Amino acid sequence: MARNRAYFDYNASAPLITAARDAIVDALALPGNPSSVHMEGRAAKATLQAARRDVAGLVNAKPDHVFFTSGATEAASTLLTPQYLMGRAEMRLSKLYVSASEHPCILAGGRFAAEQIEIIPVDGRGLLNRDRLRELLALHDRNEGLPLVAVQAANNETGVLQPIAEIGALVKQFGGVFVVDAVQAAGRIALDITTSSVDYFILSAHKIGGPKGIGAIIAVSDLIMPKPLIRGGGQEKGHRAGTEALTLIVGFAAAARIARERLEQGGWPVLQRDKIERGIRVIAPNAIIYGSDVERLPNTTFFSLPHAKAETVQIAFDLAGIALSAGSACSSGKVGPSHVLAAMGHGDGTGGIRVSTAPDTDDDDIELFLDALKKIVIRSDRSGTAAADAA
Amino acid sequence: MARNRAYFDYNASAPLITAARDAIVDALALPGNPSSVHMEGRAAKATLQAARRDVAGLVNAKPDHVFFTSGATEAASTLLTPQYLMGRAEMRLSKLYVSASEHPCILAGGRFAAEQIEIIPVDGRGLLNRDRLRELLALHDRNEGLPLVAVQAANNETGVLQPIAEIGALVKQFGGVFVVDAVQAAGRIALDITTSSVDYFILSAHKIGGPKGIGAIIAVSDLIMPKPLIRGGGQEKGHRAGTEALTLIVGFAAAARIARERLEQGGWPVLQRDKIERGIRVIAPNAIIYGSDVERLPNTTFFSLPHAKAETVQIAFDLAGIALSAGSACSSGKVGPSHVLAAMGHGDGTGGIRVSTAPDTDDDDIELFLDALKKIVIRSDRSGTAAADAA
Repeated sequence: MARNRAYFDYNASAPLITAARDAIVDALALPGNPSSVHMEGRAAKATLQAARRDVAGLVNAKPDHVFFTSGATEAASTLLTPQYLMGRAEMRLSKLYVSASEHPCILAGGRFAAEQIEIIPVDGRGLLNRDRLRELLALHDRNEGLPLVAVQAANNETGVLQPIAEIGALVKQFGGVFVVDAVQAAGRIALDITTSSVDYFILSAHKIGGPKGIGAIIAVSDLIMPKPLIRGGGQEKGHRAGTEALTLIVGFAAAARIARERLEQGGWPVLQRDKIERGIRVIAPNAIIYGSDVERLPNTTFFSLPHAKAETVQIAFDLAGIALSAGSACSSGKVGPSHVLAAMGHGDGTGGIRVSTAPDTDDDDIELFLDALKKIVIRSDRSGTAAADAA
Repeated sequence: MARNRAYFDYNASAPLITAARDAIVDALALPGNPSSVHMEGRAAKATLQAARRDVAGLVNAKPDHVFFTSGATEAASTLLTPQYLMGRAEMRLSKLYVSASEHPCILAGGRFAAEQIEIIPVDGRGLLNRDRLRELLALHDRNEGLPLVAVQAANNETGVLQPIAEIGALVKQFGGVFVVDAVQAAGRIALDITTSSVDYFILSAHKIGGPKGIGAIIAVSDLIMPKPLIRGGGQEKGHRAGTEALTLIVGFAAAARIARERLEQGGWPVLQRDKIERGIRVIAPNAIIYGSDVERLPNTTFFSLPHAKAETVQIAFDLAGIALSAGSACSSGKVGPSHVLAAMGHGDGTGGIRVSTAPDTDDDDIELFLDALKKIVIRSDRSGTAAADAA
């Protein structure tokens, strides 16, 4: 039977890889609570600590500096706070600086009040305006507290990579704290917490082939940590209370291990993305591919067809057997204009179609996608209106 | 081969039941993000909604009033806040009243400042002092905001049940909000959110045979909700952002379904607990069983042996093949005096041994436990010192 469906929504949620599945199934048999001191508890604890090493390895961090959370959103809500602790001493961060194209969980600003948040514009290619950031950091009043800068390594919609090393150097020049949302970048490009002046990475398992509902804060050191968001027991060295989601953590670890191996063996293949984009340019010469002249993730293409609303194109693709997104999936089924495109100056309401591939996306998948695109474009040209009307 | 190990630490973490395991393994195959609108996303969403119905069923709530969290600790950190919202209108709660024997995640007080938290004493049997609560609620200044009362339905160490209906009536008499930590009670005694004046239940999956790392806030209505703790995307109707931990949620749902069926078919068997306690009284006539003259969970026995430190007894049991706790496992391996016993006036430092059974704990398990107890008591009597010295 010919395949009749292909999944091109890896950036929304990556299908679970086999190694992660196997690790989860094994861990389901562990009865103990990692905080219990009996044999069963110690076995659970040992599993937890091994997983911590694997996750640390993905970004060259120390295992002790990995703090598991229920996902990237909790990690962001934890890190974005005016209250940090150096041991028991309080440390105040007075302002949060974020780019306009961040994920909603960063734009929400965590525990900062709305008036403490500064949005830095991005240019038409999606790159953060470093001159503006420098200006604002120069104006920052350090008597009130340190500046906190949060920027994503790769955008979830366009795949555009920010110049993290350059931004990090700027943040350090002004004595700030630097949080990098590495959710979409991890496993797809090499990341190393010991370089680039990054203080904290945010990771999410289900974007690298692990399970949904688990993520981590990776700190360059645990000397300075955010005031805990979730308090109770002493888990995660007191930085994050609550019994650990052991089954998800082992799945996260397995995905991190495989992702690291791939990066060490030549990296994520960019071939599929290039085939997809060549196909788009042939089938729809008027299509716009966003961020195509700057560095991007090897697996993400964000494009729009002239006169075709992204939401209706997405539905047409779904009916044709192709799972992809109009914008991102971060807002629970909410369909609206992409704030990322608006920030890049493309806020005409057409919206963008996101095609995001897995490492094993193959030529058959791509053929299925391009066939569907061809039909959608033909119908759209014929009707002169939105594609899905004819779908 | 004869069994040589028995697990009596159900209250720390219940081994995963088969139905939960099977549900998890099935859900591992779902690639979609419940927030995506394509076929894969809709399938994930449908699975999520079915799980919501099952969890709601355990406490007779509406599925729409179930809000998944990463566990009970996050649920407590979310609910215990001075800031509530009625739609978009802010509602202020000015003080938190908790019993002295609550779980650390309740005693931590969530987003309340330390000076806003009032601790209500418990008596020697572990019951909340309702007269004292009434006094404090009568003194509460409602111009500052409403009172928030948080009490556990069943204590995690002793299993003692609080008179929730009576406390709820008191809270309502003074116009307060009532949060009930039902983590240990759920599935072991019948709970119904439409009775007892409860506004919110806190549940945890891994105490009822589901996986670790998932829990829920169950609201009697979603008219009034705590200001979100974790913000970002619009998941859980905006009350809790972050991609849903789908695999854990389906495991939670399966465990809730089985727990509900058990309750409908006559409830949790109390026979094992009674056998264990008869055995303790015969083997160690001087043992104290805490809370034994008040209503308790059908699966929990908390006792101490005179002159024997609980931590050393726990180690001796572990070496003898019995997994149980000295106190609770909530503080990540931290061994210290039980705050619950101290609150009950038994703070002599001996500590307590918690034996907590599963529904399928059988006579062989109990025999293993009583054999181990016998040896520990004999050694302890002989040496006149702590049991584990001889182990």
